[in-house]
Amino acid sequence: MYGAGDVRVENVPDPTLREPTDAVVRVLRSCICGSDLWPYGSMPAAEQGRRMGHEFLGVVEDVGADMSGLKAGDVVVAPFVWADNTCDFCAEGLQTSCRHGGQWGHDLDGGQSEAVRVPQAQGTLVKLPVDEDSALLPSLLTLSDVFCTGHHCAVTAGVGPRTTVTVIGDGAVGLSAVLASERLGAERILLMGRHKDRTDLGREFGATDVIAERGEEGIARVRDLTGGDGTHTVLECVGTKPAIEMAFGVARDGGVVSRVGAPQYSEVPMDFSVFMRNITLTGGVAPARAYIEELLPDVLDGRIEPGRVFDRTISLDEVPDGYHAMASRESLKVIIRP
Amino acid sequence: MYGAGDVRVENVPDPTLREPTDAVVRVLRSCICGSDLWPYGSMPAAEQGRRMGHEFLGVVEDVGADMSGLKAGDVVVAPFVWADNTCDFCAEGLQTSCRHGGQWGHDLDGGQSEAVRVPQAQGTLVKLPVDEDSALLPSLLTLSDVFCTGHHCAVTAGVGPRTTVTVIGDGAVGLSAVLASERLGAERILLMGRHKDRTDLGREFGATDVIAERGEEGIARVRDLTGGDGTHTVLECVGTKPAIEMAFGVARDGGVVSRVGAPQYSEVPMDFSVFMRNITLTGGVAPARAYIEELLPDVLDGRIEPGRVFDRTISLDEVPDGYHAMASRESLKVIIRP
Repeated sequence: MYGAGDVRVENVPDPTLREPTDAVVRVLRSCICGSDLWPYGSMPAAEQGRRMGHEFLGVVEDVGADMSGLKAGDVVVAPFVWADNTCDFCAEGLQTSCRHGGQWGHDLDGGQSEAVRVPQAQGTLVKLPVDEDSALLPSLLTLSDVFCTGHHCAVTAGVGPRTTVTVIGDGAVGLSAVLASERLGAERILLMGRHKDRTDLGREFGATDVIAERGEEGIARVRDLTGGDGTHTVLECVGTKPAIEMAFGVARDGGVVSRVGAPQYSEVPMDFSVFMRNITLTGGVAPARAYIEELLPDVLDGRIEPGRVFDRTISLDEVPDGYHAMASRESLKVIIRP
Repeated sequence: MYGAGDVRVENVPDPTLREPTDAVVRVLRSCICGSDLWPYGSMPAAEQGRRMGHEFLGVVEDVGADMSGLKAGDVVVAPFVWADNTCDFCAEGLQTSCRHGGQWGHDLDGGQSEAVRVPQAQGTLVKLPVDEDSALLPSLLTLSDVFCTGHHCAVTAGVGPRTTVTVIGDGAVGLSAVLASERLGAERILLMGRHKDRTDLGREFGATDVIAERGEEGIARVRDLTGGDGTHTVLECVGTKPAIEMAFGVARDGGVVSRVGAPQYSEVPMDFSVFMRNITLTGGVAPARAYIEELLPDVLDGRIEPGRVFDRTISLDEVPDGYHAMASRESLKVIIRP
């Protein structure tokens, strides 16, 4: 990406092992993230392009000398933040704060490519018991970010069998949060979104109610539907200030707002009234690595199909079109097949 | 209170039963709260005074027809918000959101007085197994607010045996939060405060380290003391914007900031970096009623002495002086003996 609206497909040197903890992975599937749309909308033009893509699964092509447990030919998924998976933060399930980890792209390869050098590969990669042509690849790819992000939102909010949930946002993360909430047994799931094709998928994922209204009207509608109280948990999957403002409005006293949409604001409206109502704000960037093993069986046996958020498949050459399609909301989420 | 700095002691009609769920309580001890100092500092002058005081214990003088379990002569403590203790919020331990509860003062009697009409008295009052002249009265009085508030801060933050804690503020709430954290078994308690007599009491309450620096220097000092990481939990017991800003700075990634100081700001600085570090903000007004039975045995057997936050005893006539003493920091917290 060279700037807002400027995505180019370029040839770069093939990745090779640099550290004994590296692996090289040939990409089978990757995708474009809603968070990629923020720089796509606003990145200042730059001479040096930024490598893009942090969600991918692929086949191990080569492993460093210090690697064990993975070998060439293994099908693997990479979480959207790489990590050693052994430090104290990783042991606590917060691989996004790993002492030896980091983000894709920038100085490293991006996932929207043919192949990636993976640092700390033994800790980062998770082996998948499927073939290269498995029909499950789209759903398995969501474990790299989008479904784990929805799951993180639901888990940190405390969603469970006795929990009512409002999900704000009908993008791929919001729909993933609906599916994750359903999987965790939520009592009731209210989905706030105004794109019927998306909220229809949300209903199939488990939403019990759909609210098209926003702002004060949206708050009033959720309160109407919940006897005036709001819901125990609110999963904020947008990242804008109006969305987080609405989140506090629909939260029940003593409830939890969790946010996983990268916040496009620096101050959160949690004033005296929010204090008097004992509302908690939690969430953050999802440590996908912490959840993959737990979620994998449900994907493998078809109990959940988070890959249904992909509504378009493109080649690498079509990636610029894919950005345009997502930014213009023609597409919910595009999957890339290099 | 008739305005900033203007507290008057006046004769008002004796309280009497109005509802069958009322009781009338003769006040044995009450006190001035740090939160009373906000209007004492800024309340616009008014013709109609505001009745003050929300922390008191006393002797039941009269009970309504619907009351059971309490009788004239019982010594009782009142939490700082009254509640029926039977609605769904109360059942969840959130008596501050009781469907039939409310706050002292305003249209009701205040606790800084000789006697109080207590609404929803059966739910609100907790019987204390002590005599009117018990030496434990000061510590028992702290169950009405200040110690329960410190405890709420520690509980909502998740303080436990494997938790490191930073307490921001060496006022009575901050010191209560130190004591509550020690009681909950915190691994290490860092107290941020600059009044030596207060932080000395904090050390006796269980603080392992005292940090006098504030702002960026304070953050650096806490990080120095914690291997660069900050603490798992941060108990924000001040309520100002600089204090909450500092709180996020000293929180460990994945940690929890809990706030119980009435916030004197409407926007919380939880920007992208806080999001990337998965910091949670919790806390709020403390449902003291939820905690009294749990904390009472430790006060009765002398295991904890939260009443040590009181450093001055005054009569009702001296209440205006008491406000002045607390506002000017001559006194940490004053107890009133009508």
